[in-house]
Amino acid sequence: DVLRAARRGRLRFTGGNCNGICSVSTSLHALLSPVRPRLGDVAFVSQGGSPGVVTMGLTWKYGVGLSRYTNLGDEMDVKVHEVMEYYINDPRTRVVAAYLESVRDGRMLMETARRGVLKKPIVVYKSGVTEAGRRAAEAHVGALAGSEEVFNAVTKQTGMVRARTVEQLMGIAAAFSTQPLPKGRKVGIVTVGGGWGVVVADALGVGGGELVELTEEEVEYLNRFLPPHWSRQNPVDTTDGAFDPEVLVKCTETLIRKEEVDGVIVVGVGIIEAFVNLMVKDEDLRELGVQSEVNIAERIVKLRDRYQKPVLAATIYAERDSRVVEALKEMGMPVYDSPHTVASAFLAMAEYHDHVERIKRPYKPL
Amino acid sequence: DVLRAARRGRLRFTGGNCNGICSVSTSLHALLSPVRPRLGDVAFVSQGGSPGVVTMGLTWKYGVGLSRYTNLGDEMDVKVHEVMEYYINDPRTRVVAAYLESVRDGRMLMETARRGVLKKPIVVYKSGVTEAGRRAAEAHVGALAGSEEVFNAVTKQTGMVRARTVEQLMGIAAAFSTQPLPKGRKVGIVTVGGGWGVVVADALGVGGGELVELTEEEVEYLNRFLPPHWSRQNPVDTTDGAFDPEVLVKCTETLIRKEEVDGVIVVGVGIIEAFVNLMVKDEDLRELGVQSEVNIAERIVKLRDRYQKPVLAATIYAERDSRVVEALKEMGMPVYDSPHTVASAFLAMAEYHDHVERIKRPYKPL
Repeated sequence: DVLRAARRGRLRFTGGNCNGICSVSTSLHALLSPVRPRLGDVAFVSQGGSPGVVTMGLTWKYGVGLSRYTNLGDEMDVKVHEVMEYYINDPRTRVVAAYLESVRDGRMLMETARRGVLKKPIVVYKSGVTEAGRRAAEAHVGALAGSEEVFNAVTKQTGMVRARTVEQLMGIAAAFSTQPLPKGRKVGIVTVGGGWGVVVADALGVGGGELVELTEEEVEYLNRFLPPHWSRQNPVDTTDGAFDPEVLVKCTETLIRKEEVDGVIVVGVGIIEAFVNLMVKDEDLRELGVQSEVNIAERIVKLRDRYQKPVLAATIYAERDSRVVEALKEMGMPVYDSPHTVASAFLAMAEYHDHVERIKRPYKPL
Repeated sequence: DVLRAARRGRLRFTGGNCNGICSVSTSLHALLSPVRPRLGDVAFVSQGGSPGVVTMGLTWKYGVGLSRYTNLGDEMDVKVHEVMEYYINDPRTRVVAAYLESVRDGRMLMETARRGVLKKPIVVYKSGVTEAGRRAAEAHVGALAGSEEVFNAVTKQTGMVRARTVEQLMGIAAAFSTQPLPKGRKVGIVTVGGGWGVVVADALGVGGGELVELTEEEVEYLNRFLPPHWSRQNPVDTTDGAFDPEVLVKCTETLIRKEEVDGVIVVGVGIIEAFVNLMVKDEDLRELGVQSEVNIAERIVKLRDRYQKPVLAATIYAERDSRVVEALKEMGMPVYDSPHTVASAFLAMAEYHDHVERIKRPYKPL
């Protein structure tokens, strides 16, 4: 059979029942997929072909790229932990992402992951965790899928970060690929719309995220830039102040330089571009508006680099052809379309930071 | 002040601190939003302006339309239960959707909802349910937001359906707006990719969804159309059989006509169009391929109408300019981009069906 023939020729292979591999960084695409991934430093291993294709689509959405992709299918030869090991030692890869249905060699996977997370974050989406999903998985790649409880224990013990949706898998990988790690879960939120600030705060709260308080001095300072009806607390709701390009930068800076802030989420970038395109007839004027917002984006990215804290962007303008959003992605800022996904990305980074710190702490005898 | 002046003139108003209202069916747009909603029969009331704008964007994504939109802001005059009451009695509205942050008159809202759900489904997203979210909500519309537990009890008692994300709010409304209700949670899945079938099955399993079994006769029958390596069970994984236009229709029909099936989810529509656009140079041939898939879509919609069971479509091609996806939306089939959202939509319909049946059951004395 195929396996014996391969062994005889000292050839190793992925599959069967898979849609191929690709090495984005060397432009090798041995792949059955209508979508090609963006180039980047996330290496992705998948036990299913269609989740692989879905994920490649998501690389464009969030503005994150892949370095490698391997679809394992039913793992006649190469196993998932072997690919993971390769990714962990691959200099072109900064983040490892995995779609798992059923793990054949759990012990080896756990060993590989446990050591691996000390080098790079490993984000994993596991399907086949409910009765319905398990039955579907058994027919698909022909192996027993584990239960919800078992896999939860596996991620806790190894330090792999678990994504709860396929979208989160790539959304979380995007954050790891581009951001410094937060040292905790204290967040500053700047938003151009109060309601969306509440939704993001809630989504953070579900996973232990907290909002920092503004001092009186900070409120005074922001009063100088914001309209009188701004929120005067975190989330900093700029209301219509957002149409002044200076405002988003001042708000972000006020939050990120606070000692206790671990990271900032900016909600609504792209709003100037959207309104300008809608309401301004004159082309030069429109161009000026869009440029002013691209400039905001650049300055926000610089704040992240200066303070070495993560800054994530979320906006409802993420899915449309927005030059501001594209500029952010080009500068290495992932852009999220959903308040829930951006929150999960921040919390995942904090969780990984916690795990690594816990492991690295030297053993102290009593 | 504004309220007193309005009362004197017998004028009622929404706001303050809001972005307006619109009546899509009469083309009234008194609204500050860069996005206009699609026209349809979902009436939406929002306590926040930005969630309103987000939702209008989502109407295009899922292919569902709005009949009315009201942004209440801080509810100086008109309250959320009054708008809900109006929507419930509005002949242009089939589904009521609400974004809530903080409820001022809980008793009235519960009364309105309890009676309302017997006429129309009410889908609600509630923010401000965590500590972080609550604090943000208090600053935003200036009222106390309730806790997670309280609001869970409210939805259970009233029969309102709770959306867990902003995307689900519109995704669920889209299903109610277009589909017959499922009588239970037994699902048939047809998928062009095994992995995605597993993810959908899992997402259904989380909320009590079950997969029906295929009989030997049904497997035999499908053997005639599907390639030898198809899954031979539910989810029906067509593998590369999907490139034959007949296959998706035969699979859907086999599942939907089964007595015990309450609804069908079809995953991957748009795949022929995507591959044809990628690989076929000849324009006429390409047109032929796309047309063949539009034709599949039409026949699947007819199956839904004939059997009066819900059929939902999910595909990774939903976000790109796909003529097949647009055709489905035009025919009143919402199209989901995420396996998690499509599953939540199906489960929400089943939950609503359960509630209404329970209420309608006549009182039987012991």
